Amino acid sequence: MLDPKRIKRIAINTGGGDAPGLNAVIRAATLAAIERGWEVYGIRHGYRGLIDTKELIPLTRDTVRGITHLGGTILGTANKGNPFEYPIQTPEGVRLTDISDKVVENFRAKQLDALICIGGDGSMRLAQKFIKKGIPIVGVPKTIDNDLSGTVTTFGFDTAVSTATDAIDKLHSTAEAHERVMVVEVMGRYAGWIALASGVAGTADVILMPEIPFDLEKVSEKVMQRERAGRHFSIVVVAEGATPKGGQLMVRGPKEAGREVLLGGIGQYVAEEITRRTGKETRSLVLGHLQRGGGPTTFDRLIALRFGAAAVRTLAEGQVDVMVVLDPPTVRSIPLASAIERMRTVPLDSDTVLTARALGINLGD
Amino acid sequence: MLDPKRIKRIAINTGGGDAPGLNAVIRAATLAAIERGWEVYGIRHGYRGLIDTKELIPLTRDTVRGITHLGGTILGTANKGNPFEYPIQTPEGVRLTDISDKVVENFRAKQLDALICIGGDGSMRLAQKFIKKGIPIVGVPKTIDNDLSGTVTTFGFDTAVSTATDAIDKLHSTAEAHERVMVVEVMGRYAGWIALASGVAGTADVILMPEIPFDLEKVSEKVMQRERAGRHFSIVVVAEGATPKGGQLMVRGPKEAGREVLLGGIGQYVAEEITRRTGKETRSLVLGHLQRGGGPTTFDRLIALRFGAAAVRTLAEGQVDVMVVLDPPTVRSIPLASAIERMRTVPLDSDTVLTARALGINLGD
Amino acid sequence: MLDPKRIKRIAINTGGGDAPGLNAVIRAATLAAIERGWEVYGIRHGYRGLIDTKELIPLTRDTVRGITHLGGTILGTANKGNPFEYPIQTPEGVRLTDISDKVVENFRAKQLDALICIGGDGSMRLAQKFIKKGIPIVGVPKTIDNDLSGTVTTFGFDTAVSTATDAIDKLHSTAEAHERVMVVEVMGRYAGWIALASGVAGTADVILMPEIPFDLEKVSEKVMQRERAGRHFSIVVVAEGATPKGGQLMVRGPKEAGREVLLGGIGQYVAEEITRRTGKETRSLVLGHLQRGGGPTTFDRLIALRFGAAAVRTLAEGQVDVMVVLDPPTVRSIPLASAIERMRTVPLDSDTVLTARALGINLGD
Amino acid sequence: MLDPKRIKRIAINTGGGDAPGLNAVIRAATLAAIERGWEVYGIRHGYRGLIDTKELIPLTRDTVRGITHLGGTILGTANKGNPFEYPIQTPEGVRLTDISDKVVENFRAKQLDALICIGGDGSMRLAQKFIKKGIPIVGVPKTIDNDLSGTVTTFGFDTAVSTATDAIDKLHSTAEAHERVMVVEVMGRYAGWIALASGVAGTADVILMPEIPFDLEKVSEKVMQRERAGRHFSIVVVAEGATPKGGQLMVRGPKEAGREVLLGGIGQYVAEEITRRTGKETRSLVLGHLQRGGGPTTFDRLIALRFGAAAVRTLAEGQVDVMVVLDPPTVRSIPLASAIERMRTVPLDSDTVLTARALGINLGD
Repeated sequence: MLDPKRIKRIAINTGGGDAPGLNAVIRAATLAAIERGWEVYGIRHGYRGLIDTKELIPLTRDTVRGITHLGGTILGTANKGNPFEYPIQTPEGVRLTDISDKVVENFRAKQLDALICIGGDGSMRLAQKFIKKGIPIVGVPKTIDNDLSGTVTTFGFDTAVSTATDAIDKLHSTAEAHERVMVVEVMGRYAGWIALASGVAGTADVILMPEIPFDLEKVSEKVMQRERAGRHFSIVVVAEGATPKGGQLMVRGPKEAGREVLLGGIGQYVAEEITRRTGKETRSLVLGHLQRGGGPTTFDRLIALRFGAAAVRTLAEGQVDVMVVLDPPTVRSIPLASAIERMRTVPLDSDTVLTARALGINLGD
Repeated sequence: MLDPKRIKRIAINTGGGDAPGLNAVIRAATLAAIERGWEVYGIRHGYRGLIDTKELIPLTRDTVRGITHLGGTILGTANKGNPFEYPIQTPEGVRLTDISDKVVENFRAKQLDALICIGGDGSMRLAQKFIKKGIPIVGVPKTIDNDLSGTVTTFGFDTAVSTATDAIDKLHSTAEAHERVMVVEVMGRYAGWIALASGVAGTADVILMPEIPFDLEKVSEKVMQRERAGRHFSIVVVAEGATPKGGQLMVRGPKEAGREVLLGGIGQYVAEEITRRTGKETRSLVLGHLQRGGGPTTFDRLIALRFGAAAVRTLAEGQVDVMVVLDPPTVRSIPLASAIERMRTVPLDSDTVLTARALGINLGD
Repeated sequence: MLDPKRIKRIAINTGGGDAPGLNAVIRAATLAAIERGWEVYGIRHGYRGLIDTKELIPLTRDTVRGITHLGGTILGTANKGNPFEYPIQTPEGVRLTDISDKVVENFRAKQLDALICIGGDGSMRLAQKFIKKGIPIVGVPKTIDNDLSGTVTTFGFDTAVSTATDAIDKLHSTAEAHERVMVVEVMGRYAGWIALASGVAGTADVILMPEIPFDLEKVSEKVMQRERAGRHFSIVVVAEGATPKGGQLMVRGPKEAGREVLLGGIGQYVAEEITRRTGKETRSLVLGHLQRGGGPTTFDRLIALRFGAAAVRTLAEGQVDVMVVLDPPTVRSIPLASAIERMRTVPLDSDTVLTARALGINLGD
Repeated sequence: MLDPKRIKRIAINTGGGDAPGLNAVIRAATLAAIERGWEVYGIRHGYRGLIDTKELIPLTRDTVRGITHLGGTILGTANKGNPFEYPIQTPEGVRLTDISDKVVENFRAKQLDALICIGGDGSMRLAQKFIKKGIPIVGVPKTIDNDLSGTVTTFGFDTAVSTATDAIDKLHSTAEAHERVMVVEVMGRYAGWIALASGVAGTADVILMPEIPFDLEKVSEKVMQRERAGRHFSIVVVAEGATPKGGQLMVRGPKEAGREVLLGGIGQYVAEEITRRTGKETRSLVLGHLQRGGGPTTFDRLIALRFGAAAVRTLAEGQVDVMVVLDPPTVRSIPLASAIERMRTVPLDSDTVLTARALGINLGD
């Protein structure tokens, strides 16, 4: 599909939510490509730069200088830029239109030979569609939640966990001084990786994850057990996607008749329920976007740089329709299809789960 | 009132909310007192240790070892421990009772000669009452919000501002990548010190403080002005006590008929209003207890240690009914009364406010 | 060898140099053991607690509370405590004596059933000797340098790399402002893991490792090439064990006739040689013990806790003469012998080395 | 001398060593000047941009974007750029030549109306000379060592102290685990501010400063006193300018006959002497340039931004020949002459010194 000897010009884009390390991937891929004599272009805002080519910018040694440690992405992300369902303003209102052919056309018009897509689940599915339309693509996995299969971890996760752990550390001293229960809601809609890692590292007392529907009786019992042992405070870490046992996924939104809705999110719900059941004062906190922001940790910088360089190496070997992954101690590539076939959730018999239990942490069950 | 030569045994307590640096004050005061040959006792949970003397614990070199950099307080704080209105369980329910004489009695029974009170506004008012009842007290100012007059700053504030600035930094990259408006609600019920300092240091675009009732039209105009200049994101820092112009202080609580209530706090209110007026996507975040927690910055450690040592020095000079304050470059003491006569708010002609304006930051006006 | 059902009492010790995460291992192992109903003892200073049993202390929930994030080890390390060659004071001076039988005797006298040894290469060899003498042991790998084979990484390494990267970041701005060459000497006597990881993450221009004898001409050429490109500064990271091509390992020490000796270490040597060859101003810095100190990163806390829990799990399965290792995504155990048969150095075709080269970093060759 | 209404174009330069916060001053001054309708130019490398005008660059909103938190200076510093003694290459070699008239000439040719000089002692003396030659100048104080009089503190100092304290914290755990004496050499050639602040905040056991010639007997006695109390480690902080009692300033350099020279610096000297006198194992570490590097702390960002804005405000008021200073809680300006008439050293009766003594820290006396 791709003759590596003919590569002269490649493009890079980033899709989906922000993740610490995006700039490091961009930098490494750019420098690695320049080292091979290729030209590099950045597509701003997902595919926007291939729809409106003003958003296609040359990436040079100068443009990627000093960005390894910066959060965000110099290319911008794409919140709503799916070219297969692109929002076009018409007299009748916004209409979702398939303009993917336009993207392919511009890709060719710009004489681009390959594309490095940095993104999550959604971006990789999009990539597959464009591969079918003839664009040679190598994927680089990006997910704060760590829920992409095929890679042991990816950049951004260590930073998110560190931010969450740091927050838990801070709340510890205050919880103890005030003799309160602190509930921290962290990211993780479908997988509890951030909650588990930050909860164990931050020595939480309770960790609630999507993988284990929680029983508030068990949670409250843990709080009271500590109370009786003279530990008048507790730290509860809740993944945003955790749900009560027998319950259903509850979402934030306006109160409606006949439907229980979480106005303040699952963290606030858990806090209120603990107060109701134990009489303890509680406070809840939603870490939200703090977890996506900021410069990457050293660990994430390194993975991101390795991924960026590996993506170029992969192209240079003529491989496309693949995603680079971390298979410690090395980085290699796997077929794109196998990377997205299923979501990676926390195995309940994994040693980190066993560690949590051995430390006496309640997992809501 | 106090013959310093006769001091043999002193006590220390901490009142009110948690603040980074409390342990450093306790450590310095303890070591400084031991150096003079005094014994030191820590009163747990405000005055609880003088009501139930099991909560009175000896402070030695060993007990204060390695705590300088730890958040929280090894003595615990007192949320509801005012001995002049102490909650006593009676057959008819909880009754607020004046048990201050009991405190004075236990103070004497334990042969304590003086008390170092670390606390804010409320704790200092309480201290004054006990001074009138004959307990020699030196105060050490504690306020995250930095609103105590008489001292240029106190420990905990620099840590809170650093935490808030760090959060703003993190949100910056995400705001830019996603082209959003991020609203961060920081502490400061009556004074905007944290909002102003973290907003300027974190290069916010808008800072809203209790001192300047804000005009949402001006705030939105700033956001749109940036939009037109190609800056598709903005950072808004809001003190929890900021109020809209012509509006009234709105508190969080359940929605009630005929009264506008902020369910999500002032930050969420501002975020929703900006979306309504500009059409921009917004996100809001409440930093809450993160700002009180964690170890003190180097700056706060130093002030805290200096305050602790100064409190003992002050006692050794026979001074009581005073509070130690930072009057750069030195620490000295002022009459307790003058320390709490008024709240210190941000002067609108202060050079930091002028700096914010010079940097093009909108202050809601 | 070990009937897990009979375990009632175990001991833990730490050997060799300090590493961030030791306390987290101790905590997790202690809590996991208590959870199984075992008693736990800490042996202070390596094996000293089994020679002089005053140094054997009970580890309880209380003694391991709040230590996860603390650097150092509550058990102390053993610099010179090899019981097979123990320094005994005799009238003729210090004599190295084999008192290992005394250790075994005390181990039995204290009714200990198993030992968890946290240590590096040397400690594991010692462990093997005691296993032969009948003490059931599970090892936990500890090495800042990351040079133990069998485990992809171990706790302490991420912290050391983060500290080194942070230092490189700091030196960057100064090097650029002053237009200087900064040489940073990092740990790594036999393996370049820290140099490579921190150099790539910190975007160094040159990285010198024990695995690649360096050619100062090539290093100087890189500095001058940057100079010509208008980049008037360079950052050089040198592992302490790096050696010049064709040269021999040079050690620090007093100047002696006829032997070239590095007074200031390899970093200073490289700095002086670069100045001599390029005329550029240089400065060198030895990070030294900074890399071993401080609290562990979140990543290291997590590995350390998992290792501690896994060591107990391993004992409970009746396994001894093994070492727990990280085999991502899981922690498992391997025979102790295979863990120490060879040192793990940086493979020259590893993807991190390829990444360094793709980024244009000179590796001394 | 300066009619503020006529100001249309100003310049900014930075002189001397790097200090965290320089970029924040540049940013604030630039934005504040643009806000007043002025044009702003940056002079690269001290005065080089007024000698070779290619080094004069326009400062706009774009050029100062996102630099508040970055270390270093986007303008570069001037190591050897004194225009009154400028190194000119001649056939006979380098000759120091007075080319100050050329600077003044270019200043006028470029129609610059005023100059903001960010620098230390040396830069301010240079500024005075140019003021006499007719260039209107406002100074902004820059000194890591905190030894400029007239200002309570300046930007960069808090960052340097934080870096040093962080290092001391890290060494603590290792010193304790290994039962060693750790000697940390920090900056401070003529004043002990960094040593004192970081030593107190980091709970050192001994602090040696230029202000108090130290007695090694007293230092060793402190180490042994701790030993006897079961504290088998000590932390010693030494300012680079500290000298032994009765001794003379000893500098690093090649060993020469008849003159005692410190090859490894004062830190290594102290370490060796402690080992000699106490038999304890010691290690020494020179923090060096780490203290100048990296992004500014929140505190330093804020002072730097306030200074930058104040410098422009001062010009707008028609004031020149002044330096902005921090006179808490405000920033104001003082005559340049009074700012540099003497060096600010640590007063031995200052409350921080008293605090150190109260904490039991030995000050070498």
